[in-house]
Amino acid sequence: MSDLINDFRSYREKMNEKILASDNKVMKRIYNIDTNTYMEGALTSKTKEMLGLVSSMVLRCDDCVKYHLEKCIELGMTRAELFEIFSVANLVGGTIVIPHTRRALEYWEALEAEKV
Amino acid sequence: MSDLINDFRSYREKMNEKILASDNKVMKRIYNIDTNTYMEGALTSKTKEMLGLVSSMVLRCDDCVKYHLEKCIELGMTRAELFEIFSVANLVGGTIVIPHTRRALEYWEALEAEKV
Amino acid sequence: MSDLINDFRSYREKMNEKILASDNKVMKRIYNIDTNTYMEGALTSKTKEMLGLVSSMVLRCDDCVKYHLEKCIELGMTRAELFEIFSVANLVGGTIVIPHTRRALEYWEALEAEKV
Amino acid sequence: MSDLINDFRSYREKMNEKILASDNKVMKRIYNIDTNTYMEGALTSKTKEMLGLVSSMVLRCDDCVKYHLEKCIELGMTRAELFEIFSVANLVGGTIVIPHTRRALEYWEALEAEKV
Amino acid sequence: MSDLINDFRSYREKMNEKILASDNKVMKRIYNIDTNTYMEGALTSKTKEMLGLVSSMVLRCDDCVKYHLEKCIELGMTRAELFEIFSVANLVGGTIVIPHTRRALEYWEALEAEKV
Amino acid sequence: MSDLINDFRSYREKMNEKILASDNKVMKRIYNIDTNTYMEGALTSKTKEMLGLVSSMVLRCDDCVKYHLEKCIELGMTRAELFEIFSVANLVGGTIVIPHTRRALEYWEALEAEKV
Repeated sequence: MSDLINDFRSYREKMNEKILASDNKVMKRIYNIDTNTYMEGALTSKTKEMLGLVSSMVLRCDDCVKYHLEKCIELGMTRAELFEIFSVANLVGGTIVIPHTRRALEYWEALEAEKV
Repeated sequence: MSDLINDFRSYREKMNEKILASDNKVMKRIYNIDTNTYMEGALTSKTKEMLGLVSSMVLRCDDCVKYHLEKCIELGMTRAELFEIFSVANLVGGTIVIPHTRRALEYWEALEAEKV
Repeated sequence: MSDLINDFRSYREKMNEKILASDNKVMKRIYNIDTNTYMEGALTSKTKEMLGLVSSMVLRCDDCVKYHLEKCIELGMTRAELFEIFSVANLVGGTIVIPHTRRALEYWEALEAEKV
Repeated sequence: MSDLINDFRSYREKMNEKILASDNKVMKRIYNIDTNTYMEGALTSKTKEMLGLVSSMVLRCDDCVKYHLEKCIELGMTRAELFEIFSVANLVGGTIVIPHTRRALEYWEALEAEKV
Repeated sequence: MSDLINDFRSYREKMNEKILASDNKVMKRIYNIDTNTYMEGALTSKTKEMLGLVSSMVLRCDDCVKYHLEKCIELGMTRAELFEIFSVANLVGGTIVIPHTRRALEYWEALEAEKV
Repeated sequence: MSDLINDFRSYREKMNEKILASDNKVMKRIYNIDTNTYMEGALTSKTKEMLGLVSSMVLRCDDCVKYHLEKCIELGMTRAELFEIFSVANLVGGTIVIPHTRRALEYWEALEAEKV
C-alpha cells in the first residue's frame, strides 16, 4: 500500500476513534448519520458517493475527497466517470478547485495501483 | 406558470443576453462550457445535473439550485431522489444548507405544479 | 409582530413541516440533532446559541442568523454582548460580513420591539 | 435615481449609522480601516477598488459588489474593464458567480443611467 | 514541547514579524484589532476565544484553530467544553469540518501534554 | 532554486500533464480559458494577475496564490504593491486570510531570492 493511502487511513482511523471515545452524543450521532446517508435508496450508493465526492471537491476538502474516492472506486466508478465529476466540480467551483483536482487524481492513481 | 418560476426565468434570460451581448470572449466561453459539461457522457445527463444540484446546494447558490432543479425534473428526477440529494447536501454542508433546502423544495413544488 | 419577524417565522415553519413530512430519515435526524446540540451541557444553552450565531454570521447565512438571534434574546443576551459577537464575526470573517451585520441588527431591533 | 440604487444606499446608510452609534470600538475600527485600505498608495484607488470588487464577487457578497461598483464607476472604470473583472471572477470562482454577475451588471447599468 | 506545537509557533512568529516589519499600516492595524477583539468586555475573554474557535472551525482554517485552542486552554476551557464546540461546528458547518476536528483534537492533546 | 519553489512547480506540472492527457474536453477547455483570461486587454496582464491573486487569497487557495505570485513578480509587481493586495485580502476576507498571507510572503521571498 502506498504511503499516501496508508498515512491517510491510519491518521483518520486513530483520530476518529478518539473522537468517538468521548462521551459527546452529538458528535457520535453525526458520525452515525454519515454512515446512513450513503446507503442504497432511491439513488444507488455509487451515485450518492459521487454526490459526496463532487460536494467535497467544490468545498475543497482534500481529506473528504480521499474518503469518497475510496468508496467510489470500491463501488466501481471508472476513470472516465471520475473526470466527468472533475469537470462539474471545476466548472461550478472554479479554478480554485484545480489544486484539489491534482491531489484527487494522485490519490485515485494510488488507489488504482493498490487494486492491482 | 407561477410567479416564482416566471420571475427567475425572465430575469435570468434578460441578464444572460446582456452578458453574452458584450464582446468579452472569456465570459462567452464559460457559458459555452457550461452547456457542454452536462451532456451525456460516461455519466448520464441526469446524474451530472444531480452533481450540479448538490454542488450548488453546498455552495449555497439559490439561483444555481433553481436552474439545476429545472433540468433535473425535465430529466425525470423523482421527489425521493431529490430528498436524498438534500440529505447529502445537508450532511456534508451542514445546517447552513437548511434555508436553501426550504427554498429548493418550494421551487421544486412550483415546477411539479407546472407540469400538471 | 413586525412583518420581518412574521415572514421569517411563517415561511420557516411551513417549509420545515414539508421537509419533515417527507419520509427521508437523514433529514429528520439532522433536524433532531439540531435541537439537541444547543441543550444545556458543559456549556450553557446561551453560550452555545452564541456559538451558533457567530458561526452563522461568518458563514453568512441570514436565516440562520435570525434563528439564533431569536434564541439568544430568549436566553437573555444583551445588546452589548451582541455587538461583541458582531466584532468577532467581522474581524474573523472580514468586511463581507458587514451586510449580514446590518440585517442582523435590524432583526434584533425587531425582536427587541416585540418584547416590549 | 433608480429604486435599485436608492434602496441600497438608504438602507446601507441607515444601518451603518446604527452600528457606528453603538460604543463597540472594534466595529468602529473595522469601519475606519475599511476607508483607509482603498486610499491611493503603491496602487491607485481605482486598482484597489477593482481588487475589492473581484474579491466581493468571488466571495459572492452582492451588497459588497454594489458598493465597489459605485466606487469603480466614480474612479473611471469602463464597461470593458468591468467585463474583464467579471471574467476573472467567474473563472476563478466558478459558475456559482454567474447569478452575482447578472445582478452586478444590472446595478452597473443603473449607475450608468444615473450619470447621464 | 511537541514538534507540532513548536513548528506552528515558530513559523507563525517568524512570518508575523516579517509582516509587521513592513510599513503597511492597514496590515498593522488589522493585527492590532485582532488583539483587542478578544479582551474582556460584556463577554469574557474565554467566551470570545470560544467564538473565535468555532468561527475558525466552520471556516476551516487549521492555523486559526490552533491559535484559538492555545488561548482557550490558557483560559481554562475543558475537554468537555471543547467537544461541545466541536459539535456546534460540525452540525452548522457539516461533515467537511470533521478533518479539521481531527487535527484540532490532535493539537489540543499536544497542548494538554505540554501543561503537565 | 529553493525547494519550496521547486516542489510546487514540479508537482503542479506533473499533475497538470496527467489531467490534460485525459480525453476530458471540459477540463481541457477550462485550462485553456485560464490562459486566455489573463492576457492583455482593457486591463493589463499585471492588473489581471493581481485580481487573480487577491481572489485566490480571499478564497484561501495556497497553490493558486503561489501561481499568481509567480506571474505577478514576472510582470514587475513590487513588494509595496504586494502588501497593498494583502491589505485588501485581509480586510475583505478577514483574519482567516492571515495564515495564507504568511505563506504567500514566504513564497514571495523565495521568488525574490531566485531572481537575484
